[in-house]
Amino acid sequence: MQSYPSKLLESAVNELAKLPGIGRKTALRMALNLLKRNIPEVESLGNAIIKMRNEVIYCTECRNISDQELCAICSSPKRDHHLICVVEDIRDVMAVENTGQYSGVYHVLGGVISPMDGIGPQELHIEALISRVAASHIGEIILALPTTIEGDTTNFYLFRKLAGFNIKLTTIARGVSIGDELEHTDEVTLGRSILNRTPYESGLHRK
Amino acid sequence: MQSYPSKLLESAVNELAKLPGIGRKTALRMALNLLKRNIPEVESLGNAIIKMRNEVIYCTECRNISDQELCAICSSPKRDHHLICVVEDIRDVMAVENTGQYSGVYHVLGGVISPMDGIGPQELHIEALISRVAASHIGEIILALPTTIEGDTTNFYLFRKLAGFNIKLTTIARGVSIGDELEHTDEVTLGRSILNRTPYESGLHRK
Repeated sequence: MQSYPSKLLESAVNELAKLPGIGRKTALRMALNLLKRNIPEVESLGNAIIKMRNEVIYCTECRNISDQELCAICSSPKRDHHLICVVEDIRDVMAVENTGQYSGVYHVLGGVISPMDGIGPQELHIEALISRVAASHIGEIILALPTTIEGDTTNFYLFRKLAGFNIKLTTIARGVSIGDELEHTDEVTLGRSILNRTPYESGLHRK
Repeated sequence: MQSYPSKLLESAVNELAKLPGIGRKTALRMALNLLKRNIPEVESLGNAIIKMRNEVIYCTECRNISDQELCAICSSPKRDHHLICVVEDIRDVMAVENTGQYSGVYHVLGGVISPMDGIGPQELHIEALISRVAASHIGEIILALPTTIEGDTTNFYLFRKLAGFNIKLTTIARGVSIGDELEHTDEVTLGRSILNRTPYESGLHRK
């Protein structure tokens, strides 16, 4: 048991240690770092997280984090609104956006089905996706969920839920990453990349 | 360049990423975790760090972080006030306190002399130590600074500054850690542990 020379320090360390991946030693290092900074800087950190938690809203259409009722992507006339990419969370939206290869819109589930963690379909934005599909004309839904048991379960659940609609359902391609050596690729990925081989296009592997 | 779907999120990520050892990816993970928590929890984190920065004071005697003008150690009549242990920062005070082997008081320098980082003697609480020594009757000062070039420089600086006073100046023992194998101990430590060998006391190596 560590004993802190100051209750104020102790309570800051306790709070910082609740952040994901932060232990008590790291939290103490952070607290001491904050003590060395000037007051406006520390207030700016404290207020930024409180303001974010209080004021962030979620896009009514795709459930992505947003500053407006309809996010920048959902309100853009340049995007293909008949194409929806279903992702786990906002980090995946950012990752796909960074590729510059996607022109459709998104649907953020806010997680994947995980009975072990007490996350069922009703904890996720799945009903919102179904209503969205029922309300407008969607041509294709791309499932871009993680390749884990939970991701697969969620894919299967969505597949069953969406089967009644006349929509093309696809998943992102799994294969050998560009730059990866075959010998270091796991068997499942390599196996799939052979089954799902694509016609040769010269120049595609360079960028 | 990542583009965030919300300015509020972006500003929280920017602030979190200023914490030591936290990159932008980890900061985003933290921000998303905070968004999933309830508002009072997030306010409690934000306010704890602001309150700590605004209200923490430093003990006027030893410069340790404290809630009162005189810290719990400096105000305790049970401590030996003629014995001062000089340390770099509050974490070292906590480490020494945890041993339960020390009954003296401390002096927290707030760092070590490091010209590379622009830290000279005047940035540290060295003058406060000299005044303390001049004002009261101190019998011994234990230097417990890190064994780095900066720590050694600071030790030497303090040695020169304190030479005029009639005070016993010691450093903590360096040697082979309890439980360590000799073959894995570096030569300098092992060499010192032979030079500074101590009389055999049975039972000391167990605990």
